[in-house]
Amino acid sequence: MSLFSRVGIIARLDNPQVLETVKKLIDYLENRDIIPVLEENLGAMLPGIKIQLAPVKELGNYCDLAIVVGGDGSFLGAARALCDYDVPVLGVNRGTLGFLTDISPQTLETELDTIFAGQYLEERRFMLNAKITRHNKPSGAGEALNDIVLHPGKSARMIRFDMYIDDQFVMNQKSDGLIVATPTGSTAYSLSAGGPILLPKLDAIVLVPMHPHTLSNRPIVIDANAKIRIVISESNLTYPSVSCDGQLHITAAPGDEIHITRKEGGIRLIHPHNHDFYDVCRTKLGWQTGYNN
Amino acid sequence: MSLFSRVGIIARLDNPQVLETVKKLIDYLENRDIIPVLEENLGAMLPGIKIQLAPVKELGNYCDLAIVVGGDGSFLGAARALCDYDVPVLGVNRGTLGFLTDISPQTLETELDTIFAGQYLEERRFMLNAKITRHNKPSGAGEALNDIVLHPGKSARMIRFDMYIDDQFVMNQKSDGLIVATPTGSTAYSLSAGGPILLPKLDAIVLVPMHPHTLSNRPIVIDANAKIRIVISESNLTYPSVSCDGQLHITAAPGDEIHITRKEGGIRLIHPHNHDFYDVCRTKLGWQTGYNN
Amino acid sequence: MSLFSRVGIIARLDNPQVLETVKKLIDYLENRDIIPVLEENLGAMLPGIKIQLAPVKELGNYCDLAIVVGGDGSFLGAARALCDYDVPVLGVNRGTLGFLTDISPQTLETELDTIFAGQYLEERRFMLNAKITRHNKPSGAGEALNDIVLHPGKSARMIRFDMYIDDQFVMNQKSDGLIVATPTGSTAYSLSAGGPILLPKLDAIVLVPMHPHTLSNRPIVIDANAKIRIVISESNLTYPSVSCDGQLHITAAPGDEIHITRKEGGIRLIHPHNHDFYDVCRTKLGWQTGYNN
Amino acid sequence: MSLFSRVGIIARLDNPQVLETVKKLIDYLENRDIIPVLEENLGAMLPGIKIQLAPVKELGNYCDLAIVVGGDGSFLGAARALCDYDVPVLGVNRGTLGFLTDISPQTLETELDTIFAGQYLEERRFMLNAKITRHNKPSGAGEALNDIVLHPGKSARMIRFDMYIDDQFVMNQKSDGLIVATPTGSTAYSLSAGGPILLPKLDAIVLVPMHPHTLSNRPIVIDANAKIRIVISESNLTYPSVSCDGQLHITAAPGDEIHITRKEGGIRLIHPHNHDFYDVCRTKLGWQTGYNN
Repeated sequence: MSLFSRVGIIARLDNPQVLETVKKLIDYLENRDIIPVLEENLGAMLPGIKIQLAPVKELGNYCDLAIVVGGDGSFLGAARALCDYDVPVLGVNRGTLGFLTDISPQTLETELDTIFAGQYLEERRFMLNAKITRHNKPSGAGEALNDIVLHPGKSARMIRFDMYIDDQFVMNQKSDGLIVATPTGSTAYSLSAGGPILLPKLDAIVLVPMHPHTLSNRPIVIDANAKIRIVISESNLTYPSVSCDGQLHITAAPGDEIHITRKEGGIRLIHPHNHDFYDVCRTKLGWQTGYNN
Repeated sequence: MSLFSRVGIIARLDNPQVLETVKKLIDYLENRDIIPVLEENLGAMLPGIKIQLAPVKELGNYCDLAIVVGGDGSFLGAARALCDYDVPVLGVNRGTLGFLTDISPQTLETELDTIFAGQYLEERRFMLNAKITRHNKPSGAGEALNDIVLHPGKSARMIRFDMYIDDQFVMNQKSDGLIVATPTGSTAYSLSAGGPILLPKLDAIVLVPMHPHTLSNRPIVIDANAKIRIVISESNLTYPSVSCDGQLHITAAPGDEIHITRKEGGIRLIHPHNHDFYDVCRTKLGWQTGYNN
Repeated sequence: MSLFSRVGIIARLDNPQVLETVKKLIDYLENRDIIPVLEENLGAMLPGIKIQLAPVKELGNYCDLAIVVGGDGSFLGAARALCDYDVPVLGVNRGTLGFLTDISPQTLETELDTIFAGQYLEERRFMLNAKITRHNKPSGAGEALNDIVLHPGKSARMIRFDMYIDDQFVMNQKSDGLIVATPTGSTAYSLSAGGPILLPKLDAIVLVPMHPHTLSNRPIVIDANAKIRIVISESNLTYPSVSCDGQLHITAAPGDEIHITRKEGGIRLIHPHNHDFYDVCRTKLGWQTGYNN
Repeated sequence: MSLFSRVGIIARLDNPQVLETVKKLIDYLENRDIIPVLEENLGAMLPGIKIQLAPVKELGNYCDLAIVVGGDGSFLGAARALCDYDVPVLGVNRGTLGFLTDISPQTLETELDTIFAGQYLEERRFMLNAKITRHNKPSGAGEALNDIVLHPGKSARMIRFDMYIDDQFVMNQKSDGLIVATPTGSTAYSLSAGGPILLPKLDAIVLVPMHPHTLSNRPIVIDANAKIRIVISESNLTYPSVSCDGQLHITAAPGDEIHITRKEGGIRLIHPHNHDFYDVCRTKLGWQTGYNN
């Protein structure tokens, strides 16, 4: 008998291979008397298939495992949708290894056999909460597995803001914005902005200034339980934007405050039993390639 | 007798000190029988003063020297307005040294005495031309003294584009954009994005990727006479923006081409005779401050 | 009555101001019937003064507070000498604020009054242990408050080594070496090599590659309790060096293993009650200076 | 008839493949009645082969083309040996593309056919001269195709020096040293220290500080004809080293001056006719690999 009896499936059908993998996955599950439950949008793309559907936000109610087919970006969206349920999530990629989607469609069945037999690694990855207040009243909110990014919105180059950690003033910064990343996000956008890699298990958050006007403004690593507060200076001429995982965008205004804290719970990420974070780094970041080998 | 008989004055009256300096400057000129000519907008802010006015774009017709009062940003705007005339430009700052505005309002008269007596340094700083084409037809154009920046416009994080130098394919890049900076611009925005400092006289341009997805994409320094062509990939979902000196913004579309070349002529920049570029660097960039002194 | 009855004094008398401050400090203590105990070397430089002396390594036996007069470098040496005692350490600088030596000689008496009255902040800063083994036998060891640095020793440019974290293989690196820094060290040498700032309280260590041959080799932040193992590749032609706080140097050989772990205990660092880490950063790193203000 | 009648061969026989390629090359030449001339050391490794030998420094007298078999490092050594002759140099690599050695041993004969028929690209790459003076008297000298590097020598972490460009004072720097690189060297060591890529044809030099104590000390690109002067501060406690291409090391002393200028002439570098610098960058630097593809 399988560990999991109902499996949710989430995918963005942006290329034919994803569709094929989803079909293969449905077959796999049905052959083993495991009930697949599809994200609503997927159902529309698979006419004639009789499978239970659910809106992605409610999928967590109907399954005891969720499988995301796609890139790391698809996984991020799924994580935000599922983070209030206690459902583990597994990622199947589109052919190239991802940091979050590490099962290859080529070896899908074999790898699932092992996982469904109970051989897998489970990690809890924490997420971030962003709450925006205007005149002390809530004006927006979001969650992120990778990062919450403050950026200037359209056209204007730089924004000014004050940064506080646990209510202590840190600095007034003028920059293209700020990336607040989890360990999970530290190998994504944050890395391209000069941030360090935080090992997945580390209880820490990194704050990475984007193109800071002051050259000595550098990435700062803080405790994951710290409270970050950003006050957008009144002098800004434009309406900055707060992005969650680069997917959900909230417009802020001069004078607004952004409160970022660790979200309770977090996501249960499932890997194959032989998963090796450093190996993913070596492959995806090209750690073994030098300019002069 | 003065070297200059008619002096254009350009300023953004964004703070009271600038206004005061402009008045001081007008007095200085009139006392020496030099004719001041004011940028039109300035006239409106100085009611009752009987001085010839001209639109900033035409000011070059009416003067043999232009003086900009304000920060480096004001100077950039003036440079773009004056670059088709052969008029030298001098910058008076708002109290703190600028790379382009190096005369202090405190010592205005003394420094002008020396300059009007013929003791000054003149440098020709080259500028860049950006021409945007859509289906091989012009769809926008701009000029810049500091930099031409391609960025993704609103919200979207990254753009994809192909880069060519002298019609040779360089790379396909996925990033937050690209800064194309002159030596003059190399100490401004480009520097905060990790670009090198190019000495003012160097005949070179630097291309600085912004948060490139590929960590080995690094600043590239090319000959100032090279032709840069950027082709915005059709796959982009948003309309990128091309900014000239961070002041003039042109909207581009997927598929558009951006052609960047050195502009003929350039601006004649005047400095006090004791100007020292390295000294400005030491002061403005804080070269003498270490973390552990 | 004072909280402390015997105070050890450590200083490197490399400039006249340090000597003067030491004398002032002795007077201060004797006037309050607190017994000063001098590091042995200091005694030799203060002939005629009748004060108990002790070798710096044993000073911890004779005092319940140690005061270091000098720069952050002097403090590092004192920390290594005192780290096996449970004695708190206070730093008096030479006129400019240090990260570790934050009492100014100008306000020495007033600040000490407050501290001796019990108003101060105490932080425990952890330290690192380095153990070098050759053919599985110990061949060298050291401790550091800031950082343990592997570098190639004389002349050769690059070294090759394998890096392991908690016995998992991370990468083979070819570089100018590796900095392993504590949060305390993250604002020192590590920062100049591109490392992030770790807040003092963070239980983490940062590994910073120096000029890595592979551009995607970036700083990695790991748990402070992780075990780091570095295996110097047999192919190296030179004898690399392992430095503790840049002060103690141990020669290693191709094939040697370097084991780095958190040291039990750590140093008790005392600050004035109004100490503000971010303020030290703003001052020492020049966070408020931009290139274009 | 071939363009070249006598061909010098230079190689470091550090692996069997190099030896095999050298033999293949000798056969190739002799079959076409072109006279091979071997670097002296090579002769010793090829006993029984009757070929003219010459010391590498004199090889330029005996040939009208030199071929280097090995990595970019071997090429650098050959360039320094040949730079006072007007002999073009061609590089054959050991199986992986180099920036300087771009002919593959697998396609050796075909590529040489094309080159010997006159179809090739020739570039003149400039080199640097370093002259060290003590009390105004010469105390050492060297040449480099890639870079001249000032570093602290054994153990000591940082050195202090004053930097001058064309006799103008630039800054006093405290760092792990300074890399002065040509465009050729800009894709080598300089790149790993944060330097920009200079296109091969650019008449410029880049000065890259190594781990500077002051975070705003950044790479500076200057005209190739500028005169660089570095004065090692008297306060240094160790004897710094000046390295040419990482191969020739000269010991300097506190107070010494290092004068770096462009060397007259330079090296004539030969590429296959279809050589594409950007393609080498894309391949060797991995420009097409992202962290999130």
